[in-house]
Amino acid sequence: MKDFKAEIEFIYSSAIKAVNPFEAVKRSIRMKGGKLELSGGGGTAGSYDLDGFDRIFVVGAGKATAPMAEAVEDLLGERISGGCISVKYGYTGDVKQLEMIEASHPIPDENGVTAAKRILEILNGAGEKDLVISLISGGGSALLPLPPEGVSLDDKRAATDLLLKSGASIHEINTVRKHLSMVKGGNMARAAGRATVINLMMSDVVGDDMDVIASGPFVPDDTTYKSAMEVLEKYGLEGTVPPSVSDRIRSGIGGAFPENPGTGSRCFERVTNSVIASNIICLKAAASAAADLGYNALILSSMIEGDTAEAAMWHFRIAREVVLTSNPVPAPACIISGGETTVRVTGAGLGGRNMEFAMRFARHSDGETRIASCSVGTDGSDGPTDAAGAYCDGTTASRARKAGLDMNAYTAENDSYHFFEKLGDLIITGPTNTNVMDIRIMLVR
Amino acid sequence: MKDFKAEIEFIYSSAIKAVNPFEAVKRSIRMKGGKLELSGGGGTAGSYDLDGFDRIFVVGAGKATAPMAEAVEDLLGERISGGCISVKYGYTGDVKQLEMIEASHPIPDENGVTAAKRILEILNGAGEKDLVISLISGGGSALLPLPPEGVSLDDKRAATDLLLKSGASIHEINTVRKHLSMVKGGNMARAAGRATVINLMMSDVVGDDMDVIASGPFVPDDTTYKSAMEVLEKYGLEGTVPPSVSDRIRSGIGGAFPENPGTGSRCFERVTNSVIASNIICLKAAASAAADLGYNALILSSMIEGDTAEAAMWHFRIAREVVLTSNPVPAPACIISGGETTVRVTGAGLGGRNMEFAMRFARHSDGETRIASCSVGTDGSDGPTDAAGAYCDGTTASRARKAGLDMNAYTAENDSYHFFEKLGDLIITGPTNTNVMDIRIMLVR
Repeated sequence: MKDFKAEIEFIYSSAIKAVNPFEAVKRSIRMKGGKLELSGGGGTAGSYDLDGFDRIFVVGAGKATAPMAEAVEDLLGERISGGCISVKYGYTGDVKQLEMIEASHPIPDENGVTAAKRILEILNGAGEKDLVISLISGGGSALLPLPPEGVSLDDKRAATDLLLKSGASIHEINTVRKHLSMVKGGNMARAAGRATVINLMMSDVVGDDMDVIASGPFVPDDTTYKSAMEVLEKYGLEGTVPPSVSDRIRSGIGGAFPENPGTGSRCFERVTNSVIASNIICLKAAASAAADLGYNALILSSMIEGDTAEAAMWHFRIAREVVLTSNPVPAPACIISGGETTVRVTGAGLGGRNMEFAMRFARHSDGETRIASCSVGTDGSDGPTDAAGAYCDGTTASRARKAGLDMNAYTAENDSYHFFEKLGDLIITGPTNTNVMDIRIMLVR
Repeated sequence: MKDFKAEIEFIYSSAIKAVNPFEAVKRSIRMKGGKLELSGGGGTAGSYDLDGFDRIFVVGAGKATAPMAEAVEDLLGERISGGCISVKYGYTGDVKQLEMIEASHPIPDENGVTAAKRILEILNGAGEKDLVISLISGGGSALLPLPPEGVSLDDKRAATDLLLKSGASIHEINTVRKHLSMVKGGNMARAAGRATVINLMMSDVVGDDMDVIASGPFVPDDTTYKSAMEVLEKYGLEGTVPPSVSDRIRSGIGGAFPENPGTGSRCFERVTNSVIASNIICLKAAASAAADLGYNALILSSMIEGDTAEAAMWHFRIAREVVLTSNPVPAPACIISGGETTVRVTGAGLGGRNMEFAMRFARHSDGETRIASCSVGTDGSDGPTDAAGAYCDGTTASRARKAGLDMNAYTAENDSYHFFEKLGDLIITGPTNTNVMDIRIMLVR
């Protein structure tokens, strides 16, 4: 089964490379005859004559934003007039033309506030003849915290925590959050005014909704102060959240502050949003690599959540159907899915959702020599370990038995890391500087 | 969305029709120039010159075996010399050439024993110049109970119950059961000796393993008395099962009785096993019907088990991927799966796994106008209700709200029957006389 393993490594490596922040920016914008061309959706999404702009600013926030900025500097160099990015402590890069502020993630801190203010200042100063390149990646929301005057970071966090516990949907939580921020819900676009904006986003959210990625700083927000209050009321929180929060929303309903810019607002006229890295882009790269190896590649979905053990079961059953009846595609088949599952932890072992998937899958595929699989976290880190995931095939269970490993015990303890460590089947990539959730690959011959 | 519903009805109706017992037999055997032709796997699997046979016997057991026998009589009429089938009380048919014995299912009774003895008698009497047509369908195992001398039905049942509770796999349980039966594990083939046998099976088991369907009366059994004892020992049951059971197996190890006929045994030389109805056959018919309507049809797997709420989630996410990125197939798409999920019942409502699937799916697809779905039990009965399943689409949730139905409450109560009853979206087919588990259909436009 040596080939299986090498092929799977080739496929997931290709997939992760496609969502490398530096590479993704390099692929999405390039210079052609003095023009900056933005590609997207398989073609050219925009062309910008740089001679027409006085200044170029670069702003952004997120864990992968430093290498994104390196790529922009690599392309535009001293043509960049300045800018500011907010990155997580330690997630820095070698940028020369712009300010880089390190801030706290996932709990925001004052450095993040400083960065948000600095970026708004830059955007407010940009005019009709300026180009703004925005670089948003995972964690961008926490790294650009800017509650409105009178609301503290702690008050905002308290409101968010209450909403999370209330059972409110992510859409409902965001409705409230976007009304407690000076950057989210299209407010960065409003600040940029008549400047031209290219907003390049790396998506770490299921479904890649642009208004969810970093809470959509350059995306129209059609929710209102009134709808935010309705969410609080629905969950009985209008009297429980800090008074500064309910006061702000109530004053907004009364017209004290403008609503967030919605669909059709003039400030979006010169804004182009583009998702340049996402789980589906990663899966497509995997499919392409698999096709290069001669496999019939099929992408099931980039949005698989739910229980890991369940996911392992039904993924296996789809691969098994290929063996039995050549459905959904005939062998040699490569079936791919993405997203992020969860593990119901029952034991005290070491592991992560990807290694758990592979361990569960190995139980189903015991003796099935035509099937191999892996599950990998694209950030290179699965659970609290140095592994990104694990590889398994029809020999995994028998090799475990031969090695004296009690698979039932490892499963009961959720000890997937040590299980695959002993088999030599951990997948270790090191930190990848990207995060578009997980990728699962099944090969069937 | 009227079209969606009509199209889904056409697709599942076509699917269920394909596994109708009468139709399935009619499709699999036919007369051509004095020869009986057996089709299978898309071509002719065998041709039998009836002039070469002195007698034709028909035997069998299962809930759908009566209509299967009707189809054989329809084809061969008085050419049939005799035979016997064992059917569940009330599951009778209009047969003239053979004896029909009604027996108990799922708990076997003495009528079943009588039928098993009668069938063995017929098989033992069949010679080299005779043809036996066997008709096996769901429930066939319980309807042909024949423990070896010295082991009572109760003893056998007690052993099975202990194994079920022990956590033994279905394969392990069957290893024991096949050594406590005079018909299972290839023993009907042994009884038929040198007669020619066509064994037509309707599969109600996940994966359609022929040695699992009714415990494989005409299929080689390579397990041994020794392996049966190892299963009992593995689960610490060798001293817990009734002494008659452990005695029988121990005597078998000692050579007191022959092992079951295994691979290569001469008694299988003239036996042809053919699965003529199964979940995958049902799904293929659905795919074909969907293709006739212009959909790109994709069969995921016929072997989906696990939690119903999880299944609804990931099925929806695959349909949603079609909407967003045209994966796994571009719209118009029909994505199909089969198998049998389970419901974690938390409420006191009325429902079944299929209606529960549709209710959960409707929650995910709220407002998604491009997606519709259904889940249907092929036997026409979902849970303890008169419905086979339910239909849902992107308007289901909003129609429920308009009708004042609290979807959260219906979900918490697992009251899917009353939910869809009020919306007029129950799927009611009436009893279909077949059972190849469930079919789930998603349409995406």
